[in-house]
Amino acid sequence: METFSKVNLKDKFSLFKDQWSPKIVGELNGQFVKLAKVEGSFDWHTHEEEDELFLVVKGSLTIKMRESDVTLEEGEFFIVPKAVEHKPVAEHEAWILLFEPKNTAHTGNVQNERTVAIENQEWI
Amino acid sequence: METFSKVNLKDKFSLFKDQWSPKIVGELNGQFVKLAKVEGSFDWHTHEEEDELFLVVKGSLTIKMRESDVTLEEGEFFIVPKAVEHKPVAEHEAWILLFEPKNTAHTGNVQNERTVAIENQEWI
Repeated sequence: METFSKVNLKDKFSLFKDQWSPKIVGELNGQFVKLAKVEGSFDWHTHEEEDELFLVVKGSLTIKMRESDVTLEEGEFFIVPKAVEHKPVAEHEAWILLFEPKNTAHTGNVQNERTVAIENQEWI
Repeated sequence: METFSKVNLKDKFSLFKDQWSPKIVGELNGQFVKLAKVEGSFDWHTHEEEDELFLVVKGSLTIKMRESDVTLEEGEFFIVPKAVEHKPVAEHEAWILLFEPKNTAHTGNVQNERTVAIENQEWI
């Protein structure tokens, strides 16, 4: 994998354009570091057992939750605790770094046309 | 803890000045997100069981290893695989984000005057 080379975030983001399709850029302690470009609304979903970190690298991302929303700007992160239903929304394209266990499905408990099976998620 | 509020990296870095003393800013899936200011040379050390991610937020950091070195600039990260001896070095002060298991001692297998016991590591 990529374990012995460094990762330049901007360089990695330049390698893909598809939105809502996280790419794997690092692996440690059973967790993946992923990058994604997002725009518009994602679906409400929940990860029953996994906490999920969102760090905004470029743009702005709102994470809607049932109790409250959090809006992240560049250089800000938020950890969605496990079992908390959430819905990411970005008015304009945002670039985000995700940190989550290797077995986390990005659409959580929801299966839809955006779902990329874990075994099909690509390393870049 | 901090699980329900967002974290602004620059704001958190403004809260401390001490070097080589990682502060905890997030927790997920048994891992901590930590911030540290570093300058000069750290000691050679190894984490036998834990991979450790270094992301440079400001400045430049070289991670010396016995086989090769990696120099990270802003927006670049590197994962030191478990059991790989390493020595972080920064010519000027660098601000870094660390990602590692909660039970990781920052000086690894080495105990010295810089070692902050895990139970004494602070949340900011």
